Amino acid sequence: MPINELKDQLKCFFEPESVAIVGASRNPAKFGHFLLKNLIDFEFKGKIYPVNPHANEILGLRAYPSVDQIDDEVDLAVIIVPAPIVPKVMEDCSKKRVKGVVICSSGFSEMGKKGLELERKVLEIAKNSGIRVIGPNTTGILNTSNNFTTSFAPLPKFKRGNVAFIAQTGLFAAAAFWWIISTQPFGISKVVGLGNKCDVDDSEVIDYLAEDKDTEIIAIYMEGVKNGRRLFEVLKRVAPEKPIIILKSGRTATGAKASMSHTGSIAVDDRIFDAVCKQTGVIRVEGDFEELLDVTKAFALQPLPAGNRVAVVTLTGAGGVMAADECERHGLKLATLCEKTLRKIRDRMPSWASISNPVDIEPLFEAVGPEESLRISLEAVLEDENVDCVVAIFVSVPRFVPIIDMKRIVDVIERRRDKPVFVHLLGYKENVDKWTKELEKRKIPVYPSIKRCINALGALWKYKLRREKLKKANLITT
Amino acid sequence: MPINELKDQLKCFFEPESVAIVGASRNPAKFGHFLLKNLIDFEFKGKIYPVNPHANEILGLRAYPSVDQIDDEVDLAVIIVPAPIVPKVMEDCSKKRVKGVVICSSGFSEMGKKGLELERKVLEIAKNSGIRVIGPNTTGILNTSNNFTTSFAPLPKFKRGNVAFIAQTGLFAAAAFWWIISTQPFGISKVVGLGNKCDVDDSEVIDYLAEDKDTEIIAIYMEGVKNGRRLFEVLKRVAPEKPIIILKSGRTATGAKASMSHTGSIAVDDRIFDAVCKQTGVIRVEGDFEELLDVTKAFALQPLPAGNRVAVVTLTGAGGVMAADECERHGLKLATLCEKTLRKIRDRMPSWASISNPVDIEPLFEAVGPEESLRISLEAVLEDENVDCVVAIFVSVPRFVPIIDMKRIVDVIERRRDKPVFVHLLGYKENVDKWTKELEKRKIPVYPSIKRCINALGALWKYKLRREKLKKANLITT
Repeated sequence: MPINELKDQLKCFFEPESVAIVGASRNPAKFGHFLLKNLIDFEFKGKIYPVNPHANEILGLRAYPSVDQIDDEVDLAVIIVPAPIVPKVMEDCSKKRVKGVVICSSGFSEMGKKGLELERKVLEIAKNSGIRVIGPNTTGILNTSNNFTTSFAPLPKFKRGNVAFIAQTGLFAAAAFWWIISTQPFGISKVVGLGNKCDVDDSEVIDYLAEDKDTEIIAIYMEGVKNGRRLFEVLKRVAPEKPIIILKSGRTATGAKASMSHTGSIAVDDRIFDAVCKQTGVIRVEGDFEELLDVTKAFALQPLPAGNRVAVVTLTGAGGVMAADECERHGLKLATLCEKTLRKIRDRMPSWASISNPVDIEPLFEAVGPEESLRISLEAVLEDENVDCVVAIFVSVPRFVPIIDMKRIVDVIERRRDKPVFVHLLGYKENVDKWTKELEKRKIPVYPSIKRCINALGALWKYKLRREKLKKANLITT
Repeated sequence: MPINELKDQLKCFFEPESVAIVGASRNPAKFGHFLLKNLIDFEFKGKIYPVNPHANEILGLRAYPSVDQIDDEVDLAVIIVPAPIVPKVMEDCSKKRVKGVVICSSGFSEMGKKGLELERKVLEIAKNSGIRVIGPNTTGILNTSNNFTTSFAPLPKFKRGNVAFIAQTGLFAAAAFWWIISTQPFGISKVVGLGNKCDVDDSEVIDYLAEDKDTEIIAIYMEGVKNGRRLFEVLKRVAPEKPIIILKSGRTATGAKASMSHTGSIAVDDRIFDAVCKQTGVIRVEGDFEELLDVTKAFALQPLPAGNRVAVVTLTGAGGVMAADECERHGLKLATLCEKTLRKIRDRMPSWASISNPVDIEPLFEAVGPEESLRISLEAVLEDENVDCVVAIFVSVPRFVPIIDMKRIVDVIERRRDKPVFVHLLGYKENVDKWTKELEKRKIPVYPSIKRCINALGALWKYKLRREKLKKANLITT
C-alpha cells in the first residue's frame, strides 16, 4: 500500500475527530467506564459518543443505543463489549461507515477454535466494509500529542517525548506504562497496543510512525509475526532512519506455546527473527521489559557515538574491571588516552598514583575531593580526540563522599553533547536516586548495574554500525 | 592446614580482643579517622589502641607512638599509613607479637614493580614473625556479630543475617555495602575485603566461614585466583554444605588487564574457572553486582525447590510468555497442573476463560478482584503435588488494581514454606516499592524484571542439582 494511503487509513486511530465508545458504562468498576473516563480526564478535544442501549447519559455525555444511531459522522469506534456481541457492533459500524475500530474485548483467537471463528467473522465484516481493525484483545491507542486514548486501564499523567511503543499485549502495556511514567526520564509520543493483530499489524504501525514527526525512537514488544516478508521490508526501510528496538518473546518452545494462548500467535523460528533484526538494523533485546527500557532510554537521551573508543572514569577499581569486561563483550574498545589527557588528570594526583584507562579516579578523589575529581577527569576524557564515548562510575558513601552538586558535573558533560556519556551509580540508595534524577533530568542516562549500563551503550554502537552498513549497501544498490 | 589451626589463625581478624589502629587520625577528612570512628560508633566491645606518633589522644582514646609501645597484648593491627611506611609498622607488629594485620593502605602490587617489591618485603616480615596478613589495598573486615570492623569507609547501621560477603576490592565493598543495606531484605554475617591477597586468600576465608554458625550463604566478588588447586579443593568441600555464589570479573582480555592494575591479579583462563564452578557446585553469576545480589537474595530468603516444575501465576499474558521463555533457558519446566488445581481456579472464572500454565488470572481478577484472584490461584498451585516452585507476576495499575493487602497473600504463601515463591512486580513505582517491602519483609523475594526473577530461581535449582550430583559422587568415592 502506498504510504499516503496507509497514513489516511490509520489516521482515524490516532487523530479521530469523532469517536464512539461502544460498551461505555456508568458502573465505575467496568472497563467501559474507565475507557470513557480516560478520554474525559485527558480533556480530549474530539467528539465523544458513548454507546450503551441501557443508558441515556454516561459521565455527562449523551449515550446512544447503537453506533448507527449516532447523528454525526464517526471516525473511530472503540469496542468493549463481550466478544459474542462484537459482530453485531461491527454491522452497526459498517452501516455508519466508520473508518476504523479498536476492539478491546478479549475472547477471540487467543481462546482457541471458537474464538478464532468469531475473529474471522469480525474481520470479514471489516474487510467488506473497508473498516480497519486494531485488536481484538488490546488496550489500543494512546496519542500524547492530542490526548487521545482507547485504553480501558487507568493511565497516569504522561510526559510527551520522542519514544513510541508498540505492544502486542493489553494489560501489560498498561502496567508497563505506569512503570515507564514513574521510573523513566524519557517522554512518550504514541503507545499502540495491537492485541491479536487480526488486521492492523506492526508493519503498518511502524510505517505510520516512521512518518510521525513526534516519534524518533520506536520500541516494540512482539509475540508473533503475521506477515514476515512485509515486516522485513518495513524494518529495512525504517530502522536506518529511526532506531527500532524490539523485545520479542516466545523465543523458546515453551514460550511460544504460552504465546499461542495469550495472543493466538504462531511461533516464528527465533534464529530467523534474529537474522532479520541483524539484516535490517533493528536492535533486538534478549531480556525482558527492563532491558527494553534500558536501551530505549539510551537512544532517547543520547547521541550515537562516532566510534567505539570508550573512556571509563571510575571511583572503584572493581567497577573499572567489570566495565572493561562488558566493553569487550559489546565490541567497544578502551580508548588509548592522549598524553595531554593523562597529564590533566595526573597533574592533580599524588605522585604514587598511576593512570590508564579505566581511569581510576580514587587517588584524584583523595587529593581534590569528589566533585573536582569527577569534573577534572570527565572534562579531560571528553576533550580527548581518541575518545568517542564515556562511562562514568561513581558511588555514594554518606559522609565519605559528601553530597556533591551533580549540576556542576552535568555542565561539564553538556559542553560535549556530541559524545555519549553513560553513568553507573552505586551506594546509599537515597543519594543514588537523587543523583539519578538530577542526571537524567538533563539527559544523562544512569543505570544501577554496569552490565546494563554498557549493554545500553553497546546497543547505540551496534545500531550505528548496522546503519552505516545498510546505508552503504543502499548506495551501491541504487 | 588443619581446619582448627586455620580457625585459630584467622580468629584474630574476626574476633580480636584488642586492636591497634595504626594511622588513626584526629583529622575528620582522613581514612584513619573514619576507621577509628566506625569502631566507636558501632560500640565494639574489644580494646582499641590508636597509634599515631603525633597525637596523645584521638576521639577520646589514648594514642600510642608505635604498636610496640602499647602496654597490652595486641591481637590485630589495622594499618592505614602510606605504603612506604608499612614495613616499619610491620617490624613494630613483629616485636609486639601481633597475630594478624589488616593492611588498608594501597600502593603495593597493584601499582607495578616498585609496589610489588614493597608487598614482598611486608610479606617476608610477616612470614618470619608468624603474622597473618589481610590486604594490602582493602577495607578488611566487618563482623556483625560483635560489631567489629576494619573498614575506613563510613558504614551504615547494618542488619545481621545469614549472608557473608568476600570481596577483592575496597571502596566497591563500601559502596556496595551501602547499596545492600539500603536495598536488600537479607542481613549480613561478615564482610571480608581481601584486596591484593598477599597472604590470606579466598580459600582460607571460605574455610573459616564454612565453620561460622552465623553464615549460611557465601557471596564472593573475585578478580584473581592465587592458588587455584587449593581454591578448587575448598570450594568442592564447602559449596555442597553452604551455597557459594561467585561474581568473577576479569573474564575478558580487556577486563583481565584492568584487573592487573586494580588488584595486581594475574589472569585466569575463564573457561577453566567456569569448569571449576560447575564441578564444585558453585553458582557463578556472569553479570555484575546486581546479579550477585539477585541470586544471593534468593538463597538468603527461600528454600531450595524439590524439583524443577514451576507454576507461573500471572495477571499479564505477556508476563506469562516471557516467564515461559526464561524457565526453558534455566532448565525449569512448566508444571502440568492437577485437575483439582485447575478446578479450584476455574470454578470462580467466567465460562469463556481457559486455564493452563502459565495461569493467566486476568479473568479471575475480573470476577473476584485482585486480592482474591491472587489468593485463590496461589493457594491452588502451592497445594498442587505437581508443582515444586511458583513464580507470581502481578501489576500495580492505580485505581484499576486497588491497593491490596499483601499480608493476606503472604499468609497463603507461608502455609507452604517448603516451596520457593518468586515474585515479579510491575506498574506504578510507589505501589511496587511498597508491595516489594511488604513481601520481602516476610522473605518472599521480589524482582523488577522477569528475567532476573527466573534467573534467581534457576540458580536455586542449578545449585540443588549440582549438590545432589556431588553428594552422590562423594558417597561412591567414600
